[in-house]
Amino acid sequence: MAYLNEHYLKLKAGYLFPEIARRVTTFCDQHPDAAKRLIRCGIGDVTEPLPEAVREALHKAVDEMGRRESFRGYGPEQGYPFLRQAIAQHDYRDHGLEVADDEVFVSDGSKCDTGSILDILGDRNRIAVMDPVYPVYVDTNVMAGHTGEADKEGVYSGLVYLPCNAANRFVPELPSEPVDVMYLCYPNNPTGTVATREQLTRWVEYARAHQSIILYDAAYEAYIREEGVPHSIYEIPGARECAIEFRSFSKNGGFTGTRCAFTIVPRTLEASTPSGKRSSLHPLWSRRMTTKFNGVSYIVQRGAEALYSEAGRTQVRSLIDLYLGNADILCKGVKAAGLEVYGGVNAPYIWVRAPEGLSSWDAFDKVLNEANVVITPGSGFGRSGEGYFRISAFNSRENAEEVSRRIQALSW
Amino acid sequence: MAYLNEHYLKLKAGYLFPEIARRVTTFCDQHPDAAKRLIRCGIGDVTEPLPEAVREALHKAVDEMGRRESFRGYGPEQGYPFLRQAIAQHDYRDHGLEVADDEVFVSDGSKCDTGSILDILGDRNRIAVMDPVYPVYVDTNVMAGHTGEADKEGVYSGLVYLPCNAANRFVPELPSEPVDVMYLCYPNNPTGTVATREQLTRWVEYARAHQSIILYDAAYEAYIREEGVPHSIYEIPGARECAIEFRSFSKNGGFTGTRCAFTIVPRTLEASTPSGKRSSLHPLWSRRMTTKFNGVSYIVQRGAEALYSEAGRTQVRSLIDLYLGNADILCKGVKAAGLEVYGGVNAPYIWVRAPEGLSSWDAFDKVLNEANVVITPGSGFGRSGEGYFRISAFNSRENAEEVSRRIQALSW
Repeated sequence: MAYLNEHYLKLKAGYLFPEIARRVTTFCDQHPDAAKRLIRCGIGDVTEPLPEAVREALHKAVDEMGRRESFRGYGPEQGYPFLRQAIAQHDYRDHGLEVADDEVFVSDGSKCDTGSILDILGDRNRIAVMDPVYPVYVDTNVMAGHTGEADKEGVYSGLVYLPCNAANRFVPELPSEPVDVMYLCYPNNPTGTVATREQLTRWVEYARAHQSIILYDAAYEAYIREEGVPHSIYEIPGARECAIEFRSFSKNGGFTGTRCAFTIVPRTLEASTPSGKRSSLHPLWSRRMTTKFNGVSYIVQRGAEALYSEAGRTQVRSLIDLYLGNADILCKGVKAAGLEVYGGVNAPYIWVRAPEGLSSWDAFDKVLNEANVVITPGSGFGRSGEGYFRISAFNSRENAEEVSRRIQALSW
Repeated sequence: MAYLNEHYLKLKAGYLFPEIARRVTTFCDQHPDAAKRLIRCGIGDVTEPLPEAVREALHKAVDEMGRRESFRGYGPEQGYPFLRQAIAQHDYRDHGLEVADDEVFVSDGSKCDTGSILDILGDRNRIAVMDPVYPVYVDTNVMAGHTGEADKEGVYSGLVYLPCNAANRFVPELPSEPVDVMYLCYPNNPTGTVATREQLTRWVEYARAHQSIILYDAAYEAYIREEGVPHSIYEIPGARECAIEFRSFSKNGGFTGTRCAFTIVPRTLEASTPSGKRSSLHPLWSRRMTTKFNGVSYIVQRGAEALYSEAGRTQVRSLIDLYLGNADILCKGVKAAGLEVYGGVNAPYIWVRAPEGLSSWDAFDKVLNEANVVITPGSGFGRSGEGYFRISAFNSRENAEEVSRRIQALSW
C-alpha cells in the first residue's frame, strides 16, 4: 500500500494569493464599472518588457540551436561556465568578494532553490524564519516534516518565528533559543526594508558561534541604491563559513516569466553529520543539482549572461529606476495620506501600517472597494504582519501615480 | 549546530558517466591520433538541431516578451493552459485515453520530476526498481533516506531490485515480496526494450491489488513504431487508479538543452495516510509544484507547443526517423559481428551482450581502445547489467555507419 507524505496535510489550504484572487473576483463581479479602473499592486511581478540586450541574446541562442555545429544538448547541470563566470566576476569579485565560479549554481528560480536547499540539510535542525515571512520558507519546511501542526493563526509548532516590526526596524533580534538554520531576506519581501552591516554582522557572528547556517535571500539586491547597505551576505567577514546566498534575475532583468536565478554555496561552508563530524555542503548541493536537476535552458542562460553586458546593465538600471521611481511616488502618496510607511527606498515594496483599529484585511477591503487598487494584506505573511499591508511598485509610472492619488483621496 | 542530510553520504562517489569521462580522457591523452577519430555513443544526448517549427515559435515568443502588452511575467506553475491542453489532446485524448488538461503538469525535465515525485510520497514505502536501472531512480531514493547503505556492487539495502535479463526479455517479473512504489521505464533506458500490453496489464493488476503506485517513465515513447506496443500506461485499464506517467520533449523534439517535460497525475490516483485513509495525490503534486517550482520559461513552453503543430510533428518524425535509422544500422552491424543484440527497434538504445568472459568494463575498454568508440558499460546501470553494454543511436548517420563498420571489424 503506497503512502503519501502526510506532512502535506498540515499545509494551510487558504494560501494568501488565492484568497486575494477570490476577493478581487467577487468585487469585479459585483462592480463591473469599478472593475474597469482596477489597478493591481498585489503580487510582486514585473510589468516591463525583457531588456533588448536579453532578447538579442535569446534570438542568437535560438539560431545557434538551429545549426548542427552549434546545437547544445545536455549542458552542465550547475550552469554553463560562461554564466557562472559572469556572475562570480560581476556580482562578487568586482566588488572585492571572494566567490569562485564553481561556487555559483545556476537554477530556474530562487523559489525553487530556497525550497530545494532543505534536501541537503538534516531533519533535526531547529529552523528560524522572520515574521512576516515569504511563505515558501515556511511551507517547504512543513512539507519536509520539520514542523508540527499549525494553530488557528497559521503558526506552526516546531518553527522559531522571529518578529520583525517597527520597533526593531524589521530586522529580527537574535533568537533567544539556539537555532541551526535561519532564513534572512534583504532587501526584504514583504517589508521592503534593508539590514545594516552591523545587524548582519551580529547574525553572522551568531551563526559562527552556534555553527548555524544562514539562508540569505538577496533576490531584490539590485534595488539597493543607498550607500553602505550590504548587497551580499559575503560582505560580512566570516559569512563564507556560515551562509548560502540566493539571487535571481527575476526582479532585475524582468525574468519572472523567463526563469533564471542562482545560488552561492561556498566551499568553506560546513554542516555536521549526526556523529558531529563537520563536512562541506558544496559537494552535497552539487550532487543534488546533478541528480535532481538538468540545468537551465541554454537559451535562457545566454539571455541571463546578456544582463552583464554593458548594454544589459544600462537597460537593467533603467528598469530599476522605473520601479524605484514608482516606489518613491507611492511612498510619498501614502505618507501624504497620513499613514506610517516603511521600505520603498532600496526595494520595490512599500510596507504600510494601517490606521489603528484596521486589520490587514480591513485595509485590503477598503483599498479595493474605495480606491479599486489591489494590495497585499500583511497578515498573509505572518502574525507580525497583522495591521500592515504591502504595495508593490511593479507597475507602469502612470499606474503608480494614479494609485498614489487614489490612496491620498481616501478618508483614512 | 546545523546538520546535513546524512543520507547523501551513502551515495556512491563514482557515478557512471564521470568514470567513463575519466577513461576517455586518459585514452585521448595517451593516443592523440586515435582521439581524433573518437566517436561518442555513450550518453543518450541528441545531436541534431532544434526543429524549425520550434525555433520559429521561440523567436516569436522572445519578441512577445519585448512588448509591454504581450510581456509575460509569472505564469501558472503547472504550465500554461495552451501547452497543457495540447499535450492532453494530442498525446492522450486523440488516442482515446482520458487525461484532463489539469492532470498535465509541465516541468523542466523528467529527471527532475522522477526525483521530485518522492516529495509527495511517504517514507515508509517499499520501493522497487528495475535492474539495470536509470541511476536517478536509485540515487533520489538514497537521498530521501529510503535505503540503507550500498554494498560493494552498489546494491542498496532497503530497495527491491527486479532483475531484467534476456530470460524475461527485460521486463521484470512481479515482485515476490509486496512493494508499494515501483518504477517502470518503457521504452527502456538502458536496454532499449519495450513491454507488451499483457506485461503492463499484469503490473497494473498487481498495483491495483496491492494499492501500489507505478511510476511510469515514458520519456522515449516517440520511438515506438511497432503496432500494438503501448505508448502510455493509461492504455491499460485501471492505470488511472495506480500510475503516474512521465514524458519529455528531450528525445522527440531534441529539447535536452532547451528543457521541457511533463508529468501526468490522474485525479483518480490515491495513496494512503498513515492511518490508512485514502487520499488523492493530485492536490499534493499541485501544491508541490506551486510551492517549490515557478513554471517553465514562457518562451520554452511556446517552443514545446510548436512540436504539436503540423510542421512540428513532421519535423519530429524526421528526427526520430534519423535516430531509429541509426539504431537499425547499429543493430545490424553488431549482429553481423556475431553479438547478441536487444532493443534498437522502438528505442534509440542498443543493448549488447558482451561475449562470454568479457565484463561490461572489459567491453568498454576494448571498444574504446580498438574501435575508438565510446559506449556505456551495462554494469553501470546495475548488477543485472553486468556483461552487457549500451550503444546510443543519437548521432549523425555517418557516425552510426562508421561505428557499425568498426564494431564489425573488431575481433570478438
